[in-house]
Formats: sequence, C-alpha cells, structure tokens
Amino acid sequence: MNSFGRLFRVSIFGESHGLCTGVCIDGCPLGIALSEADFEPDLARRRSGGKGTTPRMEADAPRIMTGVFNGFTSGAPIVIMFENADTRSGDYSRFTEIPRPGHADFVAGVKYKGFSDYRGSGHFSGRITTGLVAAGVVARKIIAPATVAAHIREIGGSVHWEEIIDHCVAEHDSLGGIVECVVEGIPVGWGEPFFDSVESVIGHIVFAIPAIKGLEFGAGFAAAQMHGSEHNDAFVSADGKTATNHAGGINGGITNGNPVVFRVAVKPTSSIARPQHTMNVHTGEMTILETPGRHDTCITLRMPPVLEAATAIALADLKLTGNR
Amino acid sequence: MNSFGRLFRVSIFGESHGLCTGVCIDGCPLGIALSEADFEPDLARRRSGGKGTTPRMEADAPRIMTGVFNGFTSGAPIVIMFENADTRSGDYSRFTEIPRPGHADFVAGVKYKGFSDYRGSGHFSGRITTGLVAAGVVARKIIAPATVAAHIREIGGSVHWEEIIDHCVAEHDSLGGIVECVVEGIPVGWGEPFFDSVESVIGHIVFAIPAIKGLEFGAGFAAAQMHGSEHNDAFVSADGKTATNHAGGINGGITNGNPVVFRVAVKPTSSIARPQHTMNVHTGEMTILETPGRHDTCITLRMPPVLEAATAIALADLKLTGNR
Amino acid sequence: MNSFGRLFRVSIFGESHGLCTGVCIDGCPLGIALSEADFEPDLARRRSGGKGTTPRMEADAPRIMTGVFNGFTSGAPIVIMFENADTRSGDYSRFTEIPRPGHADFVAGVKYKGFSDYRGSGHFSGRITTGLVAAGVVARKIIAPATVAAHIREIGGSVHWEEIIDHCVAEHDSLGGIVECVVEGIPVGWGEPFFDSVESVIGHIVFAIPAIKGLEFGAGFAAAQMHGSEHNDAFVSADGKTATNHAGGINGGITNGNPVVFRVAVKPTSSIARPQHTMNVHTGEMTILETPGRHDTCITLRMPPVLEAATAIALADLKLTGNR
Amino acid sequence: MNSFGRLFRVSIFGESHGLCTGVCIDGCPLGIALSEADFEPDLARRRSGGKGTTPRMEADAPRIMTGVFNGFTSGAPIVIMFENADTRSGDYSRFTEIPRPGHADFVAGVKYKGFSDYRGSGHFSGRITTGLVAAGVVARKIIAPATVAAHIREIGGSVHWEEIIDHCVAEHDSLGGIVECVVEGIPVGWGEPFFDSVESVIGHIVFAIPAIKGLEFGAGFAAAQMHGSEHNDAFVSADGKTATNHAGGINGGITNGNPVVFRVAVKPTSSIARPQHTMNVHTGEMTILETPGRHDTCITLRMPPVLEAATAIALADLKLTGNR
Repeated sequence: MNSFGRLFRVSIFGESHGLCTGVCIDGCPLGIALSEADFEPDLARRRSGGKGTTPRMEADAPRIMTGVFNGFTSGAPIVIMFENADTRSGDYSRFTEIPRPGHADFVAGVKYKGFSDYRGSGHFSGRITTGLVAAGVVARKIIAPATVAAHIREIGGSVHWEEIIDHCVAEHDSLGGIVECVVEGIPVGWGEPFFDSVESVIGHIVFAIPAIKGLEFGAGFAAAQMHGSEHNDAFVSADGKTATNHAGGINGGITNGNPVVFRVAVKPTSSIARPQHTMNVHTGEMTILETPGRHDTCITLRMPPVLEAATAIALADLKLTGNR
Repeated sequence: MNSFGRLFRVSIFGESHGLCTGVCIDGCPLGIALSEADFEPDLARRRSGGKGTTPRMEADAPRIMTGVFNGFTSGAPIVIMFENADTRSGDYSRFTEIPRPGHADFVAGVKYKGFSDYRGSGHFSGRITTGLVAAGVVARKIIAPATVAAHIREIGGSVHWEEIIDHCVAEHDSLGGIVECVVEGIPVGWGEPFFDSVESVIGHIVFAIPAIKGLEFGAGFAAAQMHGSEHNDAFVSADGKTATNHAGGINGGITNGNPVVFRVAVKPTSSIARPQHTMNVHTGEMTILETPGRHDTCITLRMPPVLEAATAIALADLKLTGNR
Repeated sequence: MNSFGRLFRVSIFGESHGLCTGVCIDGCPLGIALSEADFEPDLARRRSGGKGTTPRMEADAPRIMTGVFNGFTSGAPIVIMFENADTRSGDYSRFTEIPRPGHADFVAGVKYKGFSDYRGSGHFSGRITTGLVAAGVVARKIIAPATVAAHIREIGGSVHWEEIIDHCVAEHDSLGGIVECVVEGIPVGWGEPFFDSVESVIGHIVFAIPAIKGLEFGAGFAAAQMHGSEHNDAFVSADGKTATNHAGGINGGITNGNPVVFRVAVKPTSSIARPQHTMNVHTGEMTILETPGRHDTCITLRMPPVLEAATAIALADLKLTGNR
Repeated sequence: MNSFGRLFRVSIFGESHGLCTGVCIDGCPLGIALSEADFEPDLARRRSGGKGTTPRMEADAPRIMTGVFNGFTSGAPIVIMFENADTRSGDYSRFTEIPRPGHADFVAGVKYKGFSDYRGSGHFSGRITTGLVAAGVVARKIIAPATVAAHIREIGGSVHWEEIIDHCVAEHDSLGGIVECVVEGIPVGWGEPFFDSVESVIGHIVFAIPAIKGLEFGAGFAAAQMHGSEHNDAFVSADGKTATNHAGGINGGITNGNPVVFRVAVKPTSSIARPQHTMNVHTGEMTILETPGRHDTCITLRMPPVLEAATAIALADLKLTGNR
C-alpha cells in the first residue's frame, strides 16, 4: 500500500521509466498559497548532477493537476505529477533473470511474479521520491513556523568526504553515509503515547525511503551506554527547555518543545559497476554480474531534501490529528 | 490513537494504576487454538522480579473475555484483560507539579491539561505492554513456522552486565542497553515498497515501545561506513540465500528469505532515586527532585519478550495483508 | 473488522452468551465528564421488558474499565464492559445444523467454518449493540449542543401499533417498522463531498445495525417521484434555513444547517416460533423448524436509542475530522 | 477525505473545469489484463448525449498513467486520468454569491471559505464520477465471475418515462428516479457482521454518489410492513438458495449466495433553468435565480454505470479483505 497519514494523506505513484511519477495529497487544509515554483528549491536539492550522483538528468518539472485554485489549496485532493523524459530502459531487462546483489530485483521477481515494471527499478526506484518531496513542500507550510533541516554528517565514515567520493567513483564502487535532521520551533504536545508516538510516525515514513537502514533519536544508540543520571535532560526553564537534548525533543512519544533531532544511516547504493557474485534465477547457476545503467555513487548526497520532506509529512499529520 | 495494523488490528488500553490493562485484537483469523495458558511463558519473561527490575509484583493473569470459543479463535474480536492489583498511587501525584527529567510527566501535563491519569504514569506506563505481549502470542501463531527471538546484546556498553547492574542498583541509577531481534523462517515476499516496507512497519511498532530510541536493520549504522562492494550480500543459492546478511533480510522493503535481523537501543530508565535538577511548573522555580516509587534499574532486561511481541504483530499484519 | 471512525474510533466486541459485551473508544477528546450513571437512560430505553420484546432480562450495568480519571475522560482509550448474566445457551446449538430462515445461521456456518460462537447468535447478536449505545452516550457529549432524537414512525405499516403487536405476539410472528431520526442544532459544514459525505458515514454505521435494510434522507424515495422545482428547498434566510427540508439537511454531502432527517426500514425479527421451511445443511434434506429461544416480536421497539447512538458516533467522527 | 477501501483503495481527484479528473487505485492485485479500451463501454454508458442529459460533451478518454506494464496490472498504484476539454467556466462564478437551491453552492461557500473551485461545481461535480467508473472497471475484474448490473426502474414515478422526460425538458425542470442494482454469481461469505456488513460498505460508497438520497436492500422499506413469517426467505437447497430474496442476498451483513439486490433513490437534478427563490449570501437579501449552465434534466439516466462501478469497488474490497 502506497499511502501514508491519517488526515494529511499522501499517496505516491509512478515508475522510473513509465509516463510519470507523482503524488496525490488528500486532507490538505484549504487556503494555503501553492504554486509550481514553490517546489523548485527542494526538487533542485534532490536532483542529480553533482559529483557522485547519477548522470540521468530529469527536469523534474512539477505540474499541479488538481486541488489548487487561484493560487491556493482548495480543500480538494492535490495531484502533482512529474513527467519522465530521460529514460533508457534497455539497461534493465536482464536483472529479472540475474538479480543485482543488495537490490530489490530478486524479491520483486518473486513477489510480483514477472508483472512488475522492471525498467529502471520501476516502482522501487528512488525516482518515486519526487512525489514525496513535493508533498513535503506542502507539509512544511502546514507545520510552519516549525522548520525542518537535514544535513550530511558523514560519508564513508568521514566528515571530509570530497576526496573519498572521488576515489569511490574511480573504483566504480558506492558509499553510505549518515544524515541528521533537526526540527526547530515545534511546540510541546505533538504525538501520542504508543502507536502514534513521534518516533513511530517518523520511523514509519523514514524507513519508507529507499536505502535507509538505521534511525536514532537524540542520543540514540549512545543512550544504550549511558546511565539515567547522565541521559536525563535537566529542565532549565518552565516552558520545558532542557540543558541537554538526549531525548531528541521527545518524551513519552510526545514533543517536549526542544528541537526534534534524529539521524539516519544510509546504506551504499547497491547498483555498482564492479563485478559481483550473483546467480541466474532461471537456471540456478551462479554467475558474475557487472551492472550497467546510470546510478548514484553516493545516494546520501541527495538524501537531505527527501528526509526533510518525509519528516514534514509525518509532523503535518501529527499536527492535524492532534488539533481535533 | 492506540491501534496498530491494517488487518491484524491491535488496540491497547489501560492505565498503570487503574482497574486493568489489556488489548482488543480485531481481524485475527479463526480456528487458532488459544488458551490463557498460552500467554504465560512470554508474560513470565516480561514480568519483573529479577535483579534490576521493579519490586512491583503483578500476577499478570490474562483473562480472555471475548473472541475465543471452545478453545479456538472464533473470528470475532479478541479481548484480553489484566487486572491491576499491586498499585501504590500515593507515590505519583506530585510529578504533575514537579516533572521528572527524561520522563513524560511534563509533556503529559501540557498535552492532557490535567485530565490524564498520573498514577504510576497512567496510560504511559510500561505496564501497558502487557497487552502488546498478549497480542504477540496470538501473532506468533499467525506467522508460524516463522519464529521471533530477541536477546540482550549489551547493557551499559558491556556484554558482561551482571556486575554493572549490581553497581548501578547501589548507586540508585539506571542503565540502557541494546537488544537484538532475529526472525527465522520468514519466506520471500512479505512487505511492500515504500510505506509498508518491513522496516517501516516494524519501525512503527518498535518505536511505540517506551524507552526505545534507536533501531537498525542488518548492518544498520555500520552500513554508513561501508562500500557497496562490501555491503551487498552475494547470492549463494537460487532461493535467495546470501553469504552475508548486511541487508538484515530485507531488500526494497521486502523480505528476501534470509533472517530478518535488527537491533534496538534502549535508553536508561528515566525514573531514578538520585537527586535531579527539575522545576516546579506551577511556580516556574527550579528545584531538586528525588524520585520515589518502584522502578526498573534496567528496563532492557524485560525488553526481549516485548520486542518479540511487537515484531510478531507487525509481521502478522504484513502476512495477512500480503495474502490478498 | 469491528471498528468504525477515523478520529473518534469505536471498536465493539463480545458475544451474546460469552463473558461480556463492550466497546473500546479511541480518540475521545479529554476533559468530558463521564460516569457510569450517564449510560443508564439510553441503556434503559434499549433494554427489553415491554410487550413485544424478548423476555431475556439483562441488567446492562456498564463498567468503565479505562480512560476515565476523576470523573473525566483522560485522553486514553475508554473501555466500557457489560457482563452477561441471563444466558441460556442450550437453545442454540442445533441452528448450526438447521439454520433459521432469514437469520445469519447459514452464512456464519459457511464463513466461520464451525468456529464461531453460535450461542445466542454469538457476535452477531443484537446484544452487541450495548457497546454501540455506550459509545453513543460519549458521542452525544462531543456533538453537543446538537441533539439526536429517533422515534418510531410505524410498525407493521400502521401508526397505531399497540393492537397489531398484541395480535402478532399471539400468532408467534414478528413485525417490521420504520424509525425516523432527527438531528437538531447541527452547524453548516460537517461532512465532505463523496466518500465522507454525511450520508455515506451515517449510511455506513446505520447499516451496521442488525435488521436495518433501508435508509432514506429527507424526501428519500419520494424524491424519485418529484420534479426539481418541487424538491429544491428554497432558502428563507441568509444562514441557510430553507422553507422545506427535502434534502434532509444535507447538500453535496455536507450539513446545511437545517435538521438532518432520515428514516430506516427495520425488517421483522427473523427468529419466530412458527414452523418454517428450512434444511439440514449436513444432510441436505429439507425440514421444518420451530424456533425456540427468547426473541423480540418487534425489534423496532428497541431501535430508537441504538439508531441515535449510531448517528451520534458518525457525527462525532465527522466533527472531529472536520476540526483539523 | 477522498479515499475508499481497505485493501482495494480508490482515491478520486479532479475538478469539473480544472485540468483533469481521475483516480488512483492502490492495492490492486497484479496480473490483471488492463488497457485503455477496457474503460470505454462503461464510460460510454455514463457519457451524456441522449435526451435529458447535459449538452456538455467530454471525450472521456482515459489515460493509464501508472501501474500497468505490458498490458497487465503490475502491483504498483494505478493512476487513470481524464483531461477536461469542453469547459465554460463563465457560467458559474455568481453562484458563490447567489447559491442555487438544492445545490452544494451554499455549503461549499461556508465550508471552504471562498477557496474551493466553484467552476462547474469544481470537486463537487458529477464529473468526478469518471474516476469512480474507471475504478469500477478494474473492480469488476477482481470480483469476476460475479457480475454487477444496474437498470432504471422508474423515472418521475413512472415506468414509461420517455414522454415524461420530453415534457420535463420543455418545462425546464428536472426529474428523479429509481435505479436497481443486481449482483449475480456472488459466493456465500463476503462481508462481516456490523461495521463491514455488505450493506454498510455498499451503503458508504453508494451514498458518496451525488444525488442519491435513499437505499434499500431486498424488500427494503416494504419489509417494514411485513411479518417475519412472510419476510423470512425459505431455504430451497443446501447451498443456501432461497425461494424468495427479501433479504437482498445478505444475512447478518454477509452474502448468502443469492443475488445481492438493492435500489437507490435519485433526486431530481437541482440545477434547473426555472426561476427559483434564493438569496444573496453577501447582502442577505432574498432574490430570484434563473440557472444558466448546461445540466442534466434527469441524472438517473446516467446513473446505472456509476452505481455498478461503486458496487463493484465495494465488493472488490470486501473480497480482498475476506481473503486474508
């Protein structure tokens, strides 16, 4: 199922090499100023082009099809579409027979029994995150004045990654990384205990982003090595501000008025041009695969706007649900 | 909102010092053998009593109120209740005025405006996980022959934690830890790309467990430091078995037939008996708090059955949803 | 699935001859005064006892198990239970073999494969509506000052039904009827176009009430014979009040500020003591059945509080959802 | 909210005079043959053109944007769009000030505070049902070999409606009618007791269709005048076939293997060209309105394919949910 959210409901659709990708947003409050230009900054940050990103170049021109009237959201469902243009589908067909290690090729073959669109990874493609980024632009307007900002913390284990990426491109390999996201200006009281905890809802959508394999809030895994007397954030003012923020701005699943802070682990792109051991699923024989196609050396580089969008979507839904 | 799941729908309820805790399970398949004795092993593992756990002793006797007929699930909603007995509510009232650092006291006060049950943390209490454990017992029967097993990896940063806990109890402090969960025997194909990825659905419910602040699948955060050539799991057989399991048994959000493996970071219990800096929310003045009440020095010790239950619930829902 | 509602979420459970019936309400706003005495008036109206109702007498004493603290809703899930007492289960077992015409016996046997609780119709029993009535009491407080009132319009086609019922009891037969429900004081703007239209949401829950087979809003089926010039309700004031109310207070799925008015058709109780043609599903042979057990001659008599409760629940959910 | 269904999830979008209307279908099983030509028969039946229908002529050419690969559903979300072409928006602007009696103009103005697209009734337009009809085409393939067929029973109270419509067109008035829908070939066991009863789920989606104000299953309102001995459908064979079908093929909310039969009341189109009493909502003064624009004299004529589609969607979701 491809929908997220209870009241701010985001449904993504599309395939990498099909006609389009896009998003349908249901439940958006009315009267929010929205134009196609609003999407450009985040789409530009997500777009490839820099060193370490895929040479596939898509214009990513969003088209608002429905739900906006005279420049404002009308209360009706908002559909935003992105036409696909720069596709080379010949690259992909053989992965249905010889799955790439670390990729969804194998599971898609078993689960979808040959019916899924394998071109450019089809509906599994990172390209589907265009719709997520578009919905995030709308979500940011809902949660304002709270702001969401993500930044790369490290790539390949290093905080100075320029050189590492150059080396990795030359080696036809790929790299993982860590991205941190900070939400400022969020009031006390968003989220619910248990199943709608802020961690649960952010966790749900963050792990929907391809390549993310870890998530920690506040002190996160470091908290596992701490004592309570060290981890507990001492209050410093009556509005709940704390001296430290080991809780990542969340107690009992609910925002406490301090910044919400979390980090994600991004695995290295699975599609690499080096020879890899795999098999032919039809014959059962082992074989060596060299992956063609155009891919990112380090998807972490393009992650911040996607992570911000996912976070804004989760928080917009929590805000609207909590307003009841 | 206190429900989880699309087809195997689990709703938890209750308060720490109210009449009961419990769970309502809707959508359970019919014809599953179920008796009150089935719950005892997991409840016993969750129960306190050992060193480092709270002295509060609850019998945790589950009572199947509805949904089971002649020893089998009937297809109707299953309600399981746990009566509360060993409660001492006098301990808690002052936390509404002087919130414990690291605890939900402050946010509950703001969000619930004085109406929430503060006794024993009310609906925020870890005691609510009795219902989760009970639902997990049912979920295990749905996902069989797949099995879920969690174990403690470290406490306070150490793999030899006995001594550390003794020391911590003496110091009136608390400790965090890391728990690993492994699902064996899971077939290829559970989960969906994006919002219903296995990571998303497990992430949602795992972060609903109080005190969990981090989650990583397979190589997790270590993947952020790896190259693709190292991280990609090489196939070794045509049924998808891989030489390594850096993906934690999940590609593209879908199980790949290898064990699903993940770890969680458990923060140290926030309630400690040492003096802590906090404030009086009514007067706005800073003050020193020494926390009375009965608490766990290390909640990690009681986490494995809760984590297993949450995982089984998530997988049962994915299995039933995928069966359509 | 046994839940209804997006934000005011009502889950009913229980069996006619099991330990209990009840309801779990999630998402109820906090701070609403609520005590067990609040339920008595509607439960009394629903209770049997009068002429034409079953001789089974249940005390229907509601027990608030969770979610209420110091006399007010706390924001946590509210569980209300009704213990079963006056059960005679020997009456029902043979209907699994020889299904009653017009009853759920046959479909339950096929669908639940022998696992469903057949005693007193188990989870199909009208007794499950105790939970609905209880949730309705809470819902009324949410939609106040809007009020919901249902009344019987006719029984057996007559507006003077006393005599008809006497006759029908003597004949061991049963009777259908029509109940009308009127919601006063509802503001303009509840409901949404299409899937969350007021008619859709009320229709969903009203047809969940056993025995209801027809529903019409405003002029309803009579509108099918009208011209637009006759059916259109002329405006008489700028706040939307209309001279007639053929629309039943709803335009485009949204309340228009006039009373919401609808009627339901209640079929005659299927369980009657007269001999009926049926079959033995095991042998496939046709047979004659005389139905024992204790039943209502005219369930319409007990319908008004159930219909009011269902309506209040639907409107409470629309109100909370629309408040976002 | 504009989505319907738990597993076969249909989200409609679009505006009457915007760029497009359409539908996003999530959860459709894979491997179903689907092409744009499949939609033409039902769209043609829905299309205007005959006597008594609007002169607005839309090509209604569906475009499958996503979710179909090599002629079969791929398991990914299916988006189908209809471009709008024949729009004349100048007709509508003044209804925001002077609402048409019986129409959504007034409630839309209050609820959407001037932000909703008023052109051609915007998102309230019957034109949005193109998406519903498209989803119905897919749904029919899921529920096959069960078939859904609707037919007009009466218009303006008459079974010979040709002449009545001619007269009504001449009078610039409109007409209501009754449409009956019959589902053949449906097995025993679809639907659930209470909230997911077949009546509830069909009721929910049927009342989402603009202009429908009444719904009755089987004997429906006539059942209210019957005795149980008359209404109960006597079994005539061991597979559950009954001599009569007063229950409309549904007992206890579950299909009983007999045809599912129901009728809907369609109100007369509210937009008529005759002078009507209304008001100016800005000035509060009463006024006379003559409605321009292009409208249907009798929307009942175009209702059968829409009603069939809605029914197929409801049943597809019940079938998939019940398959768990």
